[in-house]
Amino acid sequence: MVKNKLNIGIVGYGFMGRTHSNAFLQAPHFFDVPYQPVLKAVCARNPARLKSFAETWSYESTETDWRKLVERPDIDLIDIASPNDTHAEIAIAAAKAGKMVMCEKPLGRNAAEARAMTEAVESAKVANTVWYNYRRVPAVMLLKHLIDDGRLGRIFHYRAKFLQDWTISQDLPQGGEGLWRLDVSVAGSGVTGDLLAHTIDTAMWLNGPIAEVSAMTETFVKQRKHNLTGQIEPVGIDDASAFLCRFQNGSLATFEATRYARGHKALYTLEVNGEHASAAWDLHDLHRIEFFDHRDESQLRGWRSIHVTDSDHPYMQRWWVPGLQIGYEHTFIHQVADFLQALGEGKQSAPTFRDALATDIVTDAVLESAKTRHWQPIP
Amino acid sequence: MVKNKLNIGIVGYGFMGRTHSNAFLQAPHFFDVPYQPVLKAVCARNPARLKSFAETWSYESTETDWRKLVERPDIDLIDIASPNDTHAEIAIAAAKAGKMVMCEKPLGRNAAEARAMTEAVESAKVANTVWYNYRRVPAVMLLKHLIDDGRLGRIFHYRAKFLQDWTISQDLPQGGEGLWRLDVSVAGSGVTGDLLAHTIDTAMWLNGPIAEVSAMTETFVKQRKHNLTGQIEPVGIDDASAFLCRFQNGSLATFEATRYARGHKALYTLEVNGEHASAAWDLHDLHRIEFFDHRDESQLRGWRSIHVTDSDHPYMQRWWVPGLQIGYEHTFIHQVADFLQALGEGKQSAPTFRDALATDIVTDAVLESAKTRHWQPIP
Amino acid sequence: MVKNKLNIGIVGYGFMGRTHSNAFLQAPHFFDVPYQPVLKAVCARNPARLKSFAETWSYESTETDWRKLVERPDIDLIDIASPNDTHAEIAIAAAKAGKMVMCEKPLGRNAAEARAMTEAVESAKVANTVWYNYRRVPAVMLLKHLIDDGRLGRIFHYRAKFLQDWTISQDLPQGGEGLWRLDVSVAGSGVTGDLLAHTIDTAMWLNGPIAEVSAMTETFVKQRKHNLTGQIEPVGIDDASAFLCRFQNGSLATFEATRYARGHKALYTLEVNGEHASAAWDLHDLHRIEFFDHRDESQLRGWRSIHVTDSDHPYMQRWWVPGLQIGYEHTFIHQVADFLQALGEGKQSAPTFRDALATDIVTDAVLESAKTRHWQPIP
Amino acid sequence: MVKNKLNIGIVGYGFMGRTHSNAFLQAPHFFDVPYQPVLKAVCARNPARLKSFAETWSYESTETDWRKLVERPDIDLIDIASPNDTHAEIAIAAAKAGKMVMCEKPLGRNAAEARAMTEAVESAKVANTVWYNYRRVPAVMLLKHLIDDGRLGRIFHYRAKFLQDWTISQDLPQGGEGLWRLDVSVAGSGVTGDLLAHTIDTAMWLNGPIAEVSAMTETFVKQRKHNLTGQIEPVGIDDASAFLCRFQNGSLATFEATRYARGHKALYTLEVNGEHASAAWDLHDLHRIEFFDHRDESQLRGWRSIHVTDSDHPYMQRWWVPGLQIGYEHTFIHQVADFLQALGEGKQSAPTFRDALATDIVTDAVLESAKTRHWQPIP
Repeated sequence: MVKNKLNIGIVGYGFMGRTHSNAFLQAPHFFDVPYQPVLKAVCARNPARLKSFAETWSYESTETDWRKLVERPDIDLIDIASPNDTHAEIAIAAAKAGKMVMCEKPLGRNAAEARAMTEAVESAKVANTVWYNYRRVPAVMLLKHLIDDGRLGRIFHYRAKFLQDWTISQDLPQGGEGLWRLDVSVAGSGVTGDLLAHTIDTAMWLNGPIAEVSAMTETFVKQRKHNLTGQIEPVGIDDASAFLCRFQNGSLATFEATRYARGHKALYTLEVNGEHASAAWDLHDLHRIEFFDHRDESQLRGWRSIHVTDSDHPYMQRWWVPGLQIGYEHTFIHQVADFLQALGEGKQSAPTFRDALATDIVTDAVLESAKTRHWQPIP
Repeated sequence: MVKNKLNIGIVGYGFMGRTHSNAFLQAPHFFDVPYQPVLKAVCARNPARLKSFAETWSYESTETDWRKLVERPDIDLIDIASPNDTHAEIAIAAAKAGKMVMCEKPLGRNAAEARAMTEAVESAKVANTVWYNYRRVPAVMLLKHLIDDGRLGRIFHYRAKFLQDWTISQDLPQGGEGLWRLDVSVAGSGVTGDLLAHTIDTAMWLNGPIAEVSAMTETFVKQRKHNLTGQIEPVGIDDASAFLCRFQNGSLATFEATRYARGHKALYTLEVNGEHASAAWDLHDLHRIEFFDHRDESQLRGWRSIHVTDSDHPYMQRWWVPGLQIGYEHTFIHQVADFLQALGEGKQSAPTFRDALATDIVTDAVLESAKTRHWQPIP
Repeated sequence: MVKNKLNIGIVGYGFMGRTHSNAFLQAPHFFDVPYQPVLKAVCARNPARLKSFAETWSYESTETDWRKLVERPDIDLIDIASPNDTHAEIAIAAAKAGKMVMCEKPLGRNAAEARAMTEAVESAKVANTVWYNYRRVPAVMLLKHLIDDGRLGRIFHYRAKFLQDWTISQDLPQGGEGLWRLDVSVAGSGVTGDLLAHTIDTAMWLNGPIAEVSAMTETFVKQRKHNLTGQIEPVGIDDASAFLCRFQNGSLATFEATRYARGHKALYTLEVNGEHASAAWDLHDLHRIEFFDHRDESQLRGWRSIHVTDSDHPYMQRWWVPGLQIGYEHTFIHQVADFLQALGEGKQSAPTFRDALATDIVTDAVLESAKTRHWQPIP
Repeated sequence: MVKNKLNIGIVGYGFMGRTHSNAFLQAPHFFDVPYQPVLKAVCARNPARLKSFAETWSYESTETDWRKLVERPDIDLIDIASPNDTHAEIAIAAAKAGKMVMCEKPLGRNAAEARAMTEAVESAKVANTVWYNYRRVPAVMLLKHLIDDGRLGRIFHYRAKFLQDWTISQDLPQGGEGLWRLDVSVAGSGVTGDLLAHTIDTAMWLNGPIAEVSAMTETFVKQRKHNLTGQIEPVGIDDASAFLCRFQNGSLATFEATRYARGHKALYTLEVNGEHASAAWDLHDLHRIEFFDHRDESQLRGWRSIHVTDSDHPYMQRWWVPGLQIGYEHTFIHQVADFLQALGEGKQSAPTFRDALATDIVTDAVLESAKTRHWQPIP
């Protein structure tokens, strides 16, 4: 079968440039997708690094100005893998140029940016999606199916955490390559937009809209050297962020993210407690879910550790055999496969820009609540 | 060695009557204590059950009126193991009668009751302690030593949960034997006083005073049959309670308790994240702590699962050999052993009534914050 | 209810003297037993230690010659808690004197001793039991029920290990108080009789008789100072022992015990794989079984971690509430409770001397196979 | 940098055809390798499936006769990913044709085949390697470094298991596509060559040569329908296989493999106990090792669960960031990367055919010991 080609123009060659490039190449090896992605062009600023990146991934061409990339008639889809402060401008221009747009998360640095981006892609009627990749961990997708099938019953509790420990040292600078996440002007916020955003996206997808939040944030290290200015500058981001919330369905929740939890590398955990059953997952053992079903025979009730690697588990038929794992990068491959499949069917593939805007609205409310010290309703 | 006898008069023959009676008998079998507790009298209302209980534990006598018990000259110590609404009156009378007083937690149904009780025992200058037993799990005590020795460094985060699932059914009645914890007039509150109180006591002991809280509570089942009236009555307790807080040392924390977390029986968990190290513990595997030390060699850093059963672990030299566990009831035995040891040295044994009053002040603030929807400072 | 008294005379005041004494005292506090054990006399050689032990446990009298104890008319039951080389002589004398006999494991230092002991108690028709206490861990008893109910289906595999690490140091001496387990003349063998004996007792109870074994043993440290002679002497015990075997039911098994497995304190583990389900247990987390049921719905199959602390779990109704653990010493309490119950019904309580003889026959075969390097049938 | 191309001709398009093809394509994306593998040709028998496979992986050409492939002058390297009964003939022909040879494990169906293959590649002086991929799990490689650095000290014990449960049903046929592993004439043996071979390869790599073995095997289902003949035929493979052994370094070991361990998908586990430290790993959580170091401070000794995802862990610098996992297929990518690196340096890359021959010698001895019921020395 000769497939239609889909020409990709990517902006960014950092960590996310790699995960996305790999996903575009790998999706057709493992999934029956109706389009063949072609790595047409990569755009970034440092020419030497750009050349090296393009060679590694066999990009056909390079650009150093994203505006040129957006204007190229041979590009079908713009994939935004560059820092947060570039998302809005590129996405809006790409939409206006009639390109499909894929964008790293968070969508904007705040809800205002995200809203403008959403309106742009919706006006342009172009395919659009945001890389909230953790939805497509097979174990998380299985959990989604369980909830949607009503297996858990009425939900009472949701709790999520995203714990890291890589910024505890006061000597770590902020800003520039690899450290822009500590620079509030580039990132928009600290762990709220970086880590809590992931937990909120998954939570609303699984458990519906959030009604209100009460939050607190903290910046433990108040000033750091800035890599671009060379000066000691105030730290504008939140190092830690936590909130209580109520979902519209009446369930109660706690959320927490931090980069000061010694011993945790990227420990995204979530747990849902329902009337009949509960389930939990964590990113450090991403192929497992823990599942408790109260309807099991009384003496034999226990938390099941389900190794989500069987052929009847989401996505797993396309990979290896039971017991053999996949990893982090596969979540991006799955997102590409689902996106291409939806494209073939003329549909949008979640999470769309509008879905991601909803997350930015919550993260804005979290930051606002932490500032005002009041509960914030989610509009 | 002939030991001084310490004559115990206990009020209550329920669950806590058993744990306390056992502790008084077992402490001298395993610890070198300067006093020999004598089970002199047990007081409760149902004569048949009282007789049976007294026989099982070989109490020398019985009473059905606690006032008589308190007045008996042959009683040295009044141990209060009856429901929360009886604590204040008995404790104050016992103190006035010059008896030592041990009291089940929470100390009062609220801080006002607890304050009056504290003032009574302090005026009477009698030995007093509250059965916050989880401090004396060997693993928790080890954690206390680690923190006090500065092993964790500056504390950034504390988090605790106490999750149960036994009241999910709407058919469960409230009130009366075994179910008074659902009756707000007896219990004072729901999970806040019952479960959060434990987590707060441990937390302040480990991490110092709490500065302020923002809380939410929920009553999922709004009315239940009352066992004493036979009527469907409104449920006054909180089924779930969670709060954000800041400690005086600048660390951030989340606390949560619920009886609606399907799959969890009595899952008290706590975790502390410090600059150098982190530690975690849970009640379902109570003989272990998880410990992560960033100062370990880089490639070999990991969470250590420490099986706290060695002879150099707290309390464990008095029990069996490495690898062999003790359980729940032993925390009460340890508390008796420590109490008797302190008594021999003329000291108070923590947690005293004053320590437990501090916890009641926080639980009051939690309930107030949930009602007012504002952050509450802890006075 | 006034209970019949059962007068206990115990030989030995070491580790097992404590577990047994505790069990006799505690059983009536938690179980409805038809007899009240009375700690009538304790017998051992060191007068000062004997006095101290008798005081701690409130023994009514002491003896320093076990023959006198056996002859005392006021003793109903002789409990043997002394080193292995004393078991046969005491048990046989006690049986001849018409006493009930409880004996620490292994029954004899070898099958010949065990056979003579078995014949003695059977001739005398006295109640007899051997303290293979791990049968009465609630989780292990639950596993027994599951197998007996056919839940696992045809058994294909059994595997057990008992791993320790306390004799790795070459400086550890052999012989005398606390170290007689390293002295082959007292112990009979090393880990084969000490640790493998436990695993074999449980295995045959759960999975039926063993048909044949092929074994290997090793003594890693060839000579150690002897505490009694003060000389460096050859080490006669096996430090490690492992065997392959077939059960009569056609299942295959591996067994291993060692005191050279760094990191393991007393890690007795067992796993059974059946056609329909599998189950596993370990002593370091003794209140849990891991259970996998292939008949669970396909997508949701996983190993259940069952916290065996509910009121419908074996023995647990008599203890605390769900989620709250018991520990090592409780297995002895359960054995006393079951023994007294059986006694009230005029029955023997397993494991009897004959059951324990079967284990000694297997351990003899293991040692023989290791020596001859041939498979040994079990007669 | 323009890299030298390395033209690959692969035989087989099954499960291993996929893992190998993926590895050849992915290695240059993540590793700085001196050669660029080119998927030149794939050879297999079914033309339709062949065409589809070639399209998916962009093979430049196809062959249906492996002899033609071997003779093609544009092929540098023959990769054998076809069933065991084809390995010897293809490998020997490829070596004679001067091609480099990569071969799936086990090398031969027995040591005689493996020896002829080894002699062929050594006579031809061609690069050769066998896909014992589990050596290149980052956690396993870390364990290798620890042992080689002497961290564990003298080794006392090694134990390995490879447990599956996919052939329990009697209705499963043998032979043909996907089920040739049950057909002894194709596979050579059952779990001994399939699963034990993996455990033996790793064990001898980590712990040195094996001196002698005592084994047992079992075929639980004695006859199955054969897919090629349509007849019920005797089953010739071993369903389960276990052995005791001694290594040349004096350590004792147990090994076990089965396809009848209900609940285990592909549970390859290994543990090594040394004088100073112990380590364990399992394939179901492949990114972790459990590590216990006796030299840790006494009170804080415990098994560390090391999440082997840091940049200073083997291979992990080339992947993502700490906490983010890789999976099964990456072990093949690592093997290709190491092979290409060695090739650039003019070296062989372990495991060579000679290394794999050593494993076949042990598996032959295991099968012989099971048959003769005697210990077998390893020559």
